[in-house]
Amino acid sequence: MIRFQVIHKERNTRARLGIIHTPHGSFETPVFMPVGTYGCVKSLSPDDLREVGVKIILSNTYHLYLRPGHKLIERLGGLHKFMNWDGPILTDSGGFQVFSLSRLRKITDEGVIFQSHIDGSKHFMTPELSIEIQKSLGSDIIMAFDECAPYPAEREYIQKSVERTTAWAKRSLEALGKERSQAIFGIVQGGVYMDLREKSARELTEMDFDGYAIGGLSVGEEKSVRDKIIRETVPLLPEEKPVYLMGIGKPEDIIDAVIEGVDMFDCVIPTRNARNGTLFTKKGKIVIKNACYKEDERPIEEDCNCYTCRNFSRAYLRHLFLTRELLVYRLNTIHNLFFYSWLMEQIRKAIKEDRILEFRENFYKNREG
Amino acid sequence: MIRFQVIHKERNTRARLGIIHTPHGSFETPVFMPVGTYGCVKSLSPDDLREVGVKIILSNTYHLYLRPGHKLIERLGGLHKFMNWDGPILTDSGGFQVFSLSRLRKITDEGVIFQSHIDGSKHFMTPELSIEIQKSLGSDIIMAFDECAPYPAEREYIQKSVERTTAWAKRSLEALGKERSQAIFGIVQGGVYMDLREKSARELTEMDFDGYAIGGLSVGEEKSVRDKIIRETVPLLPEEKPVYLMGIGKPEDIIDAVIEGVDMFDCVIPTRNARNGTLFTKKGKIVIKNACYKEDERPIEEDCNCYTCRNFSRAYLRHLFLTRELLVYRLNTIHNLFFYSWLMEQIRKAIKEDRILEFRENFYKNREG
Repeated sequence: MIRFQVIHKERNTRARLGIIHTPHGSFETPVFMPVGTYGCVKSLSPDDLREVGVKIILSNTYHLYLRPGHKLIERLGGLHKFMNWDGPILTDSGGFQVFSLSRLRKITDEGVIFQSHIDGSKHFMTPELSIEIQKSLGSDIIMAFDECAPYPAEREYIQKSVERTTAWAKRSLEALGKERSQAIFGIVQGGVYMDLREKSARELTEMDFDGYAIGGLSVGEEKSVRDKIIRETVPLLPEEKPVYLMGIGKPEDIIDAVIEGVDMFDCVIPTRNARNGTLFTKKGKIVIKNACYKEDERPIEEDCNCYTCRNFSRAYLRHLFLTRELLVYRLNTIHNLFFYSWLMEQIRKAIKEDRILEFRENFYKNREG
Repeated sequence: MIRFQVIHKERNTRARLGIIHTPHGSFETPVFMPVGTYGCVKSLSPDDLREVGVKIILSNTYHLYLRPGHKLIERLGGLHKFMNWDGPILTDSGGFQVFSLSRLRKITDEGVIFQSHIDGSKHFMTPELSIEIQKSLGSDIIMAFDECAPYPAEREYIQKSVERTTAWAKRSLEALGKERSQAIFGIVQGGVYMDLREKSARELTEMDFDGYAIGGLSVGEEKSVRDKIIRETVPLLPEEKPVYLMGIGKPEDIIDAVIEGVDMFDCVIPTRNARNGTLFTKKGKIVIKNACYKEDERPIEEDCNCYTCRNFSRAYLRHLFLTRELLVYRLNTIHNLFFYSWLMEQIRKAIKEDRILEFRENFYKNREG
């Protein structure tokens, strides 16, 4: 199980500094969780993760269920042992992937029939199976199985979807059992319909979850719409429990959501961008393949203390990227995750010192500069 | 420049323990050099190389000439600085790649016209250009430009080829100049014709090289033929200079050649095999994707002290390999190069203790077991 403490509430906003204690160690919030789909944050070893300041990773139920299979991981001692990561792990419910990756979906109140995106094999995902998988994996935080509705979608569809998500949340809790050793979060859905978000939040907060997530965002809606939903949803959730904004996001999105009271984030952006050669700096993004870096002897960022910046030039990284040398994916990922760790640390510091709004302003100012 | 000392001659064979001092540090021989084609041993960082016990790497003139270009590397301070490797580097001459990788080759006494295997652009490689490239790269050991003849080839062709290689060796030496700061090795060619090997060795040893390589082997000839050539060629080379067997090889080939007096080796086998999921152990090779490793909790090798074996199971490596996770290429490469470092260390120890024949016998015995 986990324990969440709020250490400090920022004076001018909803932002807050917290700490989450898990069976695999404690970490401060707001926190960013990199994604380790197949029991591995792509290209990085557990040592690398520690070195770049990662405190908790997210791993994907859907993927690990298909390969290598949760029962195999369970027989080998669980996901922590399997991947040799002794820090906290949160697993998603598989809901998002079933709806975004797999084919031939048939949704019923019972669950979702889907075809594997790997070999076309047919599977039936239910709240009970999702929880069984996450129990086998042994993650510190389990997510309730939800329906991640498409965008755009009619109000009627979303209404039905929210009802289903509530029913599935209840079944997820029941499947995990009362005497649980793993924490479980409920996921608020409702698309862009604020009244449905309210309904979802109300129904979920009546249940005994250890934290709450806001799901189904960053699926195509306008940022202003998303921001409004976040702003109006967070206050509907219990203050004493962590709030997790799923699948988000860009540095600016994280800062904005922190200000609205969000504690936890995950996103593939820093790791995927790294593999595509897009690197984060305080002044904005760098596309390393660009010709202007051909003879650039500087590191990605002058004052960055990551392994990549301490050892390699932009010119070398560009060369490795253009020749598709495997090393570059690791070096780029190390830098981007180090940047995200740095960002979250700066955010926590700014909250502590009641200057998160000033921090946001400076963050934007530096990027324009 | 380099300095070579023979520390101990094994009592029963031609095997010898030596030390080579270079501007970037010293290392003992017999030594194995992993291949870092594009200024990077595929998937490994310089820290990884040190950790697995690599003492000297080989980098490819042909590849670095095409991408990113030797002049760029020179402007950025040379290859050591570019790739952040402060240990010794040997660069090949580009000869082998011009003949094996490129298209539309036209060989004249002047040099070789070839088409880039990347973009089809036309280039003219000469001894002078090969040396210019290697000077720009700043490697510790330069290889003279040679013709790597095809196999099989008629005696007449090889005779002409040896004459050309001798002429190119002379031009390579002249291009480097008398006051050289980098060492240069000549390459004995001659195909499978021992009298031509003798001619090549005689002509090259009359020139002022710092070491001698045996080239043009492991191109398709029988092992017994190759062994005979090595056995009969080494005695033709000056005892006080290092002998380098190019492009070889498998552990058993290395042990056999060490016994004939070879000091230096390079080969893509440990690194390429790693990326293909073939892993070296004292008992032979493991193909990690095989179903028998699906739930195998053991490391690749029980008593191996490499990072991979200290931290991960065969089951996890198999999973990463089947899901094509980038991390596995690094973990496998770490293990295989660690194995090669271990092998070379054992070889040196056996030479020191005058029991290299016994070592070979045990090595084979363990593999059968």
